[in-house]
Amino acid sequence: MALYTPYRHPALDTLLPVLSETAARRDREGGHALEEKQLLREAGLLNLSIPRAHGGDQLPWAQLYQQIRTLAAVDSALAHVLAFHHLQVLTVLIYGNASQQADLLAQTREQGLWWGNAMNPLDKRLVATPSAGGYRLTGAKAFCSGTRGSRWMTLSAHVEGQPYPLLAVVPTAEVRQLDDWNPIGQRQTDSISVALDDVFIAHEQVLKQPDVPPSAFHTLRNCFAQLVLVNLYLGIAEGALSTGCAFIREQARPWITSGVDAREDDPFQQNRVGLLDARIAGAEAAADRAGEWLQIAYDRGSALTVEERGEVSLVIGQAKVLAHQISLQASQELFEMTGAKGTHQDYGFDRFWRNARTHTLHDPLDYKLNQLGRWRLKGQLPNPQFYA
Amino acid sequence: MALYTPYRHPALDTLLPVLSETAARRDREGGHALEEKQLLREAGLLNLSIPRAHGGDQLPWAQLYQQIRTLAAVDSALAHVLAFHHLQVLTVLIYGNASQQADLLAQTREQGLWWGNAMNPLDKRLVATPSAGGYRLTGAKAFCSGTRGSRWMTLSAHVEGQPYPLLAVVPTAEVRQLDDWNPIGQRQTDSISVALDDVFIAHEQVLKQPDVPPSAFHTLRNCFAQLVLVNLYLGIAEGALSTGCAFIREQARPWITSGVDAREDDPFQQNRVGLLDARIAGAEAAADRAGEWLQIAYDRGSALTVEERGEVSLVIGQAKVLAHQISLQASQELFEMTGAKGTHQDYGFDRFWRNARTHTLHDPLDYKLNQLGRWRLKGQLPNPQFYA
Amino acid sequence: MALYTPYRHPALDTLLPVLSETAARRDREGGHALEEKQLLREAGLLNLSIPRAHGGDQLPWAQLYQQIRTLAAVDSALAHVLAFHHLQVLTVLIYGNASQQADLLAQTREQGLWWGNAMNPLDKRLVATPSAGGYRLTGAKAFCSGTRGSRWMTLSAHVEGQPYPLLAVVPTAEVRQLDDWNPIGQRQTDSISVALDDVFIAHEQVLKQPDVPPSAFHTLRNCFAQLVLVNLYLGIAEGALSTGCAFIREQARPWITSGVDAREDDPFQQNRVGLLDARIAGAEAAADRAGEWLQIAYDRGSALTVEERGEVSLVIGQAKVLAHQISLQASQELFEMTGAKGTHQDYGFDRFWRNARTHTLHDPLDYKLNQLGRWRLKGQLPNPQFYA
Amino acid sequence: MALYTPYRHPALDTLLPVLSETAARRDREGGHALEEKQLLREAGLLNLSIPRAHGGDQLPWAQLYQQIRTLAAVDSALAHVLAFHHLQVLTVLIYGNASQQADLLAQTREQGLWWGNAMNPLDKRLVATPSAGGYRLTGAKAFCSGTRGSRWMTLSAHVEGQPYPLLAVVPTAEVRQLDDWNPIGQRQTDSISVALDDVFIAHEQVLKQPDVPPSAFHTLRNCFAQLVLVNLYLGIAEGALSTGCAFIREQARPWITSGVDAREDDPFQQNRVGLLDARIAGAEAAADRAGEWLQIAYDRGSALTVEERGEVSLVIGQAKVLAHQISLQASQELFEMTGAKGTHQDYGFDRFWRNARTHTLHDPLDYKLNQLGRWRLKGQLPNPQFYA
Repeated sequence: MALYTPYRHPALDTLLPVLSETAARRDREGGHALEEKQLLREAGLLNLSIPRAHGGDQLPWAQLYQQIRTLAAVDSALAHVLAFHHLQVLTVLIYGNASQQADLLAQTREQGLWWGNAMNPLDKRLVATPSAGGYRLTGAKAFCSGTRGSRWMTLSAHVEGQPYPLLAVVPTAEVRQLDDWNPIGQRQTDSISVALDDVFIAHEQVLKQPDVPPSAFHTLRNCFAQLVLVNLYLGIAEGALSTGCAFIREQARPWITSGVDAREDDPFQQNRVGLLDARIAGAEAAADRAGEWLQIAYDRGSALTVEERGEVSLVIGQAKVLAHQISLQASQELFEMTGAKGTHQDYGFDRFWRNARTHTLHDPLDYKLNQLGRWRLKGQLPNPQFYA
Repeated sequence: MALYTPYRHPALDTLLPVLSETAARRDREGGHALEEKQLLREAGLLNLSIPRAHGGDQLPWAQLYQQIRTLAAVDSALAHVLAFHHLQVLTVLIYGNASQQADLLAQTREQGLWWGNAMNPLDKRLVATPSAGGYRLTGAKAFCSGTRGSRWMTLSAHVEGQPYPLLAVVPTAEVRQLDDWNPIGQRQTDSISVALDDVFIAHEQVLKQPDVPPSAFHTLRNCFAQLVLVNLYLGIAEGALSTGCAFIREQARPWITSGVDAREDDPFQQNRVGLLDARIAGAEAAADRAGEWLQIAYDRGSALTVEERGEVSLVIGQAKVLAHQISLQASQELFEMTGAKGTHQDYGFDRFWRNARTHTLHDPLDYKLNQLGRWRLKGQLPNPQFYA
Repeated sequence: MALYTPYRHPALDTLLPVLSETAARRDREGGHALEEKQLLREAGLLNLSIPRAHGGDQLPWAQLYQQIRTLAAVDSALAHVLAFHHLQVLTVLIYGNASQQADLLAQTREQGLWWGNAMNPLDKRLVATPSAGGYRLTGAKAFCSGTRGSRWMTLSAHVEGQPYPLLAVVPTAEVRQLDDWNPIGQRQTDSISVALDDVFIAHEQVLKQPDVPPSAFHTLRNCFAQLVLVNLYLGIAEGALSTGCAFIREQARPWITSGVDAREDDPFQQNRVGLLDARIAGAEAAADRAGEWLQIAYDRGSALTVEERGEVSLVIGQAKVLAHQISLQASQELFEMTGAKGTHQDYGFDRFWRNARTHTLHDPLDYKLNQLGRWRLKGQLPNPQFYA
Repeated sequence: MALYTPYRHPALDTLLPVLSETAARRDREGGHALEEKQLLREAGLLNLSIPRAHGGDQLPWAQLYQQIRTLAAVDSALAHVLAFHHLQVLTVLIYGNASQQADLLAQTREQGLWWGNAMNPLDKRLVATPSAGGYRLTGAKAFCSGTRGSRWMTLSAHVEGQPYPLLAVVPTAEVRQLDDWNPIGQRQTDSISVALDDVFIAHEQVLKQPDVPPSAFHTLRNCFAQLVLVNLYLGIAEGALSTGCAFIREQARPWITSGVDAREDDPFQQNRVGLLDARIAGAEAAADRAGEWLQIAYDRGSALTVEERGEVSLVIGQAKVLAHQISLQASQELFEMTGAKGTHQDYGFDRFWRNARTHTLHDPLDYKLNQLGRWRLKGQLPNPQFYA
């Protein structure tokens, strides 16, 4: 496009075709994408969120999310793993003190380390018991995306008698990895369960003590996580539409009664593509705007008010509703574009829908709509603890 | 239901739970459902369409389709195979002479024979060459549902210089079966390709010579085929909704912010279920009505006019549009009912959508809508040759 | 149609063009359709529901509803008035004793009397006080469709200390009519408020005493009322579609970039019409089935069980959801068919949407869906008192 | 909102409540909004598009469109008239030479002049004949929004033997105004027909001679016109939603079976509002982005390439599709929010739908989708002459 060209990380041009080549096979096989994660690392994509002060790229958040989206169009599982890496970097930026940031982010950049996630707030089985100089952790945590191959994990744990969860970092080597991730979609996100068997963490590993109430700025982490989902959904939608358009142009025949010589001249295909294009564009515009607002909110730091935090959460929620719906629609309509020929297992085109379907269940659309409605009707801000 | 209870074949009560038990596994594995087809045969389900004069059940067509629908709710691939068996029986009833009917249907009933389908009108690669006492056939035919394990197949072939296809029956043993059916859904329909290498068929095997123009009654076969699709789609829709309701009641937890104790009390789940229920009911009412009209049309026999044939085709088309849409919607919304928990591969719940998605591409919705619109706007009857 | 022709009252052929001629003007003016109601009466349409034993037509209910639907396609306000006339006849059939039926229905038939409705269960302002030989009634009642020009009304009233409403008939001449019906649609239904100022009714006028609990059969009246709405909505939908198709054929030009010579050849118009046609057909099939079930339930009389009554209510509910949605969709899409030219006030084409929109708010779709969902999820029958 | 507050013209705060007060009445009456146009003029809103060099506000286009949108939420007919005033100013800016701009824009600002539009490209009845020092114009032009009360009009006319239309300005006093605007919505836009009876225009009034091919920059006018529509639709959508929310909070009762005490606590109302909010937000984000791109394209001036012009047209097209759909949806769902009570004619709430419905027929959605699809599938830019 000549009028306006969004930023695109230079490594993506070479990386995406390589990932695309194997995406259908890797979806079928599931499991850990060892080689591909190595490619992402080598391309320098682990540094996008690291502040320039720590030697990273410090991409504006809206732009970082756009890279995730672009990657998700080709491989939404790897895009998830990469986005969650950056979510943990952000966690250190939000919760960590200066020394933790200096230490962990320098390591991350210099050694090209991946981060995993054990912060799932709904799973309260992991218990931390105070112990000299820190805590001992025992229990399990489910849906720990990106665990495999990571060097560090963030985690949350319950501490008896304390009002808030303890947040901390732990070397991935010290957790036990369970092989229990076998979903119908997003199959290579390594969102396994982990178990901790009396693992010690020192106070230096603690990001937030359990007696510290979370500030508005703290709970911005949930907003970042939600905006990851938005952009993954959108990437899937765009990937499905692009795939369908390419198939129409290159492989599919016009329907026998269509009266046209090429499928791309079928008026119904044209209008189907047009509608998907418009809906994706609207959701992307909403997502980009949400990314810009999130940056503003993030830049406020600890001065961020509860109301400001609520507003950015609502704007992300709007984008999430749109992205949820269009990801399902586009990945379903992909097949109207390809026709019956596109249902051959070798193409693996159903992965777009399975990926969208799996991930859009992260937290229910019903209650995202509900948050938006309560705001419009009652001026009620979303509860920052619950997926908002 | 107390007011009105539709007919249900007594064997289904024991059969369905058995098929349900293995449906997810068999979907994963694909391939031929040897044992399960044996169960259907033993249950007497191969005789439903055979006239009483030939010792069969001669179920009214609307009722026969209801049995297909009920079976499809549990296993839409096997329901397809069974329905296509009956479609070939119907082909003999429509095209065959009295002696062919007597011979083939008696065999079918007495020996419990399955029929396969090689009538695909869009695939014109199979060529018949006149030869003393019959034809020699060479070439291939794709999408031959139910070939494996069948005793007889119906087929269509091109004869050089003749205006219409030759229709005939051939022993399945004489065709070569290719192992090329590996789709994302409807994985156990055995819709493989077959090849014929200089196979001789005698005139006694010919159902329609290639110089005989198809009558309105002849082309009713396409209507029967379309109504198979309608009822398979509806079975999938109903299966998805039932599965979702059962999961809500038995396994799924209410969402944390829903404020209810049981997921079945979640108002959004209730209304989602209500909407699916209403749409399925409307499509079923349209399908049942179409079945009744099809019976009327069938009973007219060779007296059936082109216009009457067109009308029944339009009524089936209306039902097909509705069934197409609701099968996709219900199988997608199934996951909003189950929540994230339902995405585990072990459940295989994505098979409803994959089955619906694969099968709804048989012929495009766009051109079904087009047929209906042309009728309303221009009084133009659907072309009986093209999926109408 | 040659295969199957639904019953159509012979008077409609001459009546409908006459009503159609003035429908747009009468919608604009609102008020009472004195002349047109006279035409309906003269056409014999007031006798459709009266049993043959009382000299009426005793049309099967499913057929009666079809006549309402056909009329509603041209004038949904008059169709409403006619349907509500029959609803009051039905009220006498359900609640009245043999002598009341004999007296009132004979009068109705012989003198060609219209009935009005003051049964609105949500409006509890009308109070009946026991008095020698009957009751004295004081208070008001809103939304009394068909009051103007009627001879008799049915009504419900609250009696102090009694558990159920009193149901009775009252001569329309004894109520005071308020001129307060000025809605955006359904403008000629005369759904005004009425006031009763110490009006005496004798026990002979009482249909149900307030200490008699309503039986399942009694509450079937709500089902009849709901099925009126279903068929009015469907009539509006069909009217909008027919109007749009006629406009496409007769008056509208193809869009400049469409590349076709006649608007009826525009592929998008064809598919729009096709989709509306299919959805209307599905809803009509559901409505007709509901009419047949309602007849079965009605024929059970006082033997009707609560469960049977619940079932017919659910089947009507399914049809109501579909009819609600398609009436709004068709009346909105009518304008995509006509293009900008169709927005001229002289056509009054917006009346279809205004009529649908006004009437579909009778009771909320949300809670109709909710009833269906509760049944599927919890086996809970709809509360027979509340719009079910 | 605290995080980000869009620009809002200070006059709107006092103006909008005044217009809102009479909007329902003026919709009913139709005709010319003399007083209200005077209020807009006095508020300084006619200067928004006039460059600072000519003494105007030169609001960035994206911001100007936002003011139109805000006004349209209250009165979409007046918003249309105001937007079309600015579209004619833009026409002078795009086509006029320096002296024309200086003269006409100075007049406009100093005397507070309104502009009317007679540029309708589909109506080719107006013919210009070369005459000494200019042209003589005879013929008619339909849909001339804003004619009444304007001082100047822009027009297009056909010149025999010339390849392109002549574009010019003419004093409104010299055209004959026909009283033929009586639509179902947008009733106060004064989109009447005008007739010119041998009116002379000097070459000084000519904006573009009929032998000059339109440049990419010239055809940007169509983009500006399309983006007017987008923002009017969005204003209507937002107006309907706000109106519905206010009614829910202030006047509507909860449904009897809802189990809540206030309608704003009804979960279905909350989610309905949430969905509309999200869709409006997405369409607004797309519209705002389109406004920013349009500014970039406009700033390129005559250097604008055909491809750049095409891109901005496509981005506007995406927003138009979304705005079209949500304006109809929100104005229809407004009534689900209000319930039956909201159908009283006094509220005039149907005007939102009638306004949206009338205006969304300006050019068909089908062919807007088609433009988008052709671009995605074939890389084909929209034809700049036809509503793109």
